[in-house]
Amino acid sequence: MPLKLSWVASANGADHPFPLNNLPYGVFSTAGTDPRCGVAIGDMILDVRAAHAAGLITVGGTRVFDPPSWNAFMALGQDAWADLRDRLTAMLAQGSDAQAALEPHLVAANAAQMHMPIEVAEFTDFYAGRHHATNVGTMFRGADNALPPNWLHMPIGYNGRASSVVVSGTDIRRPWGQIKGPGDDTPRFAPSQRFDMELELGAIVGTPSDGPLSVQDAFDNIFGYVLLNDWSARDIQAWEYQPLGPFQAKATATTISPWIVTAAALAPFRCDAPVREVPLLDHLRDAGPMGYDIDLAVTLTPNGGAPTTIARTNANALYYSAAQQLAHHTAAGCPMRTGDLLGSGTISGAEPHQRGSLLELAWGGQDPFQLTDGQTRSFIEDGDTLALSGHARGDGFTVGFGACVGTLLPALATPYAR
Amino acid sequence: MPLKLSWVASANGADHPFPLNNLPYGVFSTAGTDPRCGVAIGDMILDVRAAHAAGLITVGGTRVFDPPSWNAFMALGQDAWADLRDRLTAMLAQGSDAQAALEPHLVAANAAQMHMPIEVAEFTDFYAGRHHATNVGTMFRGADNALPPNWLHMPIGYNGRASSVVVSGTDIRRPWGQIKGPGDDTPRFAPSQRFDMELELGAIVGTPSDGPLSVQDAFDNIFGYVLLNDWSARDIQAWEYQPLGPFQAKATATTISPWIVTAAALAPFRCDAPVREVPLLDHLRDAGPMGYDIDLAVTLTPNGGAPTTIARTNANALYYSAAQQLAHHTAAGCPMRTGDLLGSGTISGAEPHQRGSLLELAWGGQDPFQLTDGQTRSFIEDGDTLALSGHARGDGFTVGFGACVGTLLPALATPYAR
Repeated sequence: MPLKLSWVASANGADHPFPLNNLPYGVFSTAGTDPRCGVAIGDMILDVRAAHAAGLITVGGTRVFDPPSWNAFMALGQDAWADLRDRLTAMLAQGSDAQAALEPHLVAANAAQMHMPIEVAEFTDFYAGRHHATNVGTMFRGADNALPPNWLHMPIGYNGRASSVVVSGTDIRRPWGQIKGPGDDTPRFAPSQRFDMELELGAIVGTPSDGPLSVQDAFDNIFGYVLLNDWSARDIQAWEYQPLGPFQAKATATTISPWIVTAAALAPFRCDAPVREVPLLDHLRDAGPMGYDIDLAVTLTPNGGAPTTIARTNANALYYSAAQQLAHHTAAGCPMRTGDLLGSGTISGAEPHQRGSLLELAWGGQDPFQLTDGQTRSFIEDGDTLALSGHARGDGFTVGFGACVGTLLPALATPYAR
Repeated sequence: MPLKLSWVASANGADHPFPLNNLPYGVFSTAGTDPRCGVAIGDMILDVRAAHAAGLITVGGTRVFDPPSWNAFMALGQDAWADLRDRLTAMLAQGSDAQAALEPHLVAANAAQMHMPIEVAEFTDFYAGRHHATNVGTMFRGADNALPPNWLHMPIGYNGRASSVVVSGTDIRRPWGQIKGPGDDTPRFAPSQRFDMELELGAIVGTPSDGPLSVQDAFDNIFGYVLLNDWSARDIQAWEYQPLGPFQAKATATTISPWIVTAAALAPFRCDAPVREVPLLDHLRDAGPMGYDIDLAVTLTPNGGAPTTIARTNANALYYSAAQQLAHHTAAGCPMRTGDLLGSGTISGAEPHQRGSLLELAWGGQDPFQLTDGQTRSFIEDGDTLALSGHARGDGFTVGFGACVGTLLPALATPYAR
């Protein structure tokens, strides 16, 4: 599939993240206006609420774009998703006679502030990066117990905290927590000293369900994807995570990119899963190519400094697809709702420079890595800005995710000052 | 504090769960009517929405009782909670001149169907029963590793799934899941054979927060309590729970009792925590008596059979209070929302007949227990009804929780039939 040309000229570059082939959905505002639904096209945002109110878009009921989130639209289901994409593609295409009617509803993206694109119903974080699981397992439990016995049989995950999911650009406050080092007699309550990030994709459930889903049905229920940084306090995690899993280590914040790249836009980039070392049970078996070929990168920028790309990897390294994760999530009957967010797990490749967390890049602090300005890092320092990026590369076009950025603020002097 | 007398005569018994001293909040409907907020008084329910619409209750804005849940009211905060309780107490008291005006808004409880009293924002399940943690730890990890090293230092918990919380009376479907026994070479996907219940209290967050809470602030933010049965598939749990905690084992359903017993109603029953074997860190230190003296019991009734009380214990066995759990939940900055539900963890006493789960009562199937009709149980069988009950006993009055009941239906022949 080649680049689709739009009358929004800035969208017609081979490297632009938001060509007509993409059409990601977000929620934006401009100075003095309310947050509302929009779609990115080149350097512009089409105000979907306004276009809907003007009768240019007719999908859904009259109120579907009234709230400042995509949840109501997502709940309409697959046919509505296809209708809106078809309609937007036609209206924004070069030569469309809708140009004059739409132009008043375009806003320059650089004049817009982005907000959370969805109300997150619940957040689940998985662990589907095999290299990540092996690396972390080696550090936490030793090489002999690196990959848990269940790992090759099911997509391991845990429930996270929807209330702590924030949109790109939100500052992150270094947390306090209970910490006990290997040499400590007793725990203490102190600011985390091993604060980390995790490079992930987030899958957004569009269609709700109320019982076990097949892998194919799960795939069909996923509306789209975002970049996701699951900020992680490794020192809190090491002391708390046995026996019931991560809790406060993951409770400070999870950042997502503001644009939902739809499953439809990513369809050309579907790819097969890695080779299965052991066959999956029937209910989790691959039902077609449901992974994605998406280049991913992480940059770290110290306060006032220059960015260093600290990791480059690809989403095709994930052992389990979001569809398999969602299917597993429902196996025991768990109801899923519109707006449920599923983190993929940290995406690390086989090579050292492909590791999606500082924990892995600096091997638990044993091997600090260097930034372009000569500084070194083992974990995130106050003032550091972490940015994730993602791009699927087509034949003469790109489907990009936009930014997933957060800056770490110093811990409060005391968390109970207020 | 003695029994407070009401003009609703049925409320004036020393053993009635819903005297004027209690005034628990729920959501009810009668044949052909919508679910709406109500308060239990004796054998009657006062229609709070109707009383509010009639101007008899003025707390909150005009719309606070429009939705069929208590969330909007809970979000008003402590002063509003006290105002409503004071107003209801005065109007329902013996001799009140409001009797004639209120009587048209009373409904017989036995003609009402109960619904979820709140929209659950997110659900967290803790593990604060020391005897339970020790018993399960012994079975899962051996006596030497029974109590995890962190357990005496913080209230261990994990995030659960709000979408699976159901109200008392909802049937529970035996789940399928991935299971691998100790002697199995590979896992299989099959109906759970070790399906269990857990006797817990649930604390409901009323006041939202956005940063670390002290134990006292956390206590003040809790609106009330329900009984909570955290249904658990032990065979799924054993295979999945390492390293990231319980997931599908706890995803089928969690049942809560329909009446929220407020923190205010339970104030006379506050008690000190168990003796601390090691001192808690400052931010978790006891800030007064924040445990509760509540008698708890579990009955099991086979399909068509007679009930057997299989466990009797008391909430005062919990090592951590809900306030300490909520404080810990926020330590790393996690925002909490109105409607967050915190399970206490299974409440087991020191004695065998005080154990709050079948896993413990039958010691993992090694020691099946007997029902009154001679049947034995290791885990729940199809058709069994499990009922939790809770009562705080005052001087001539009782504050009861009402029923928390669920019946186990057989597993589907295949979970993917639909």
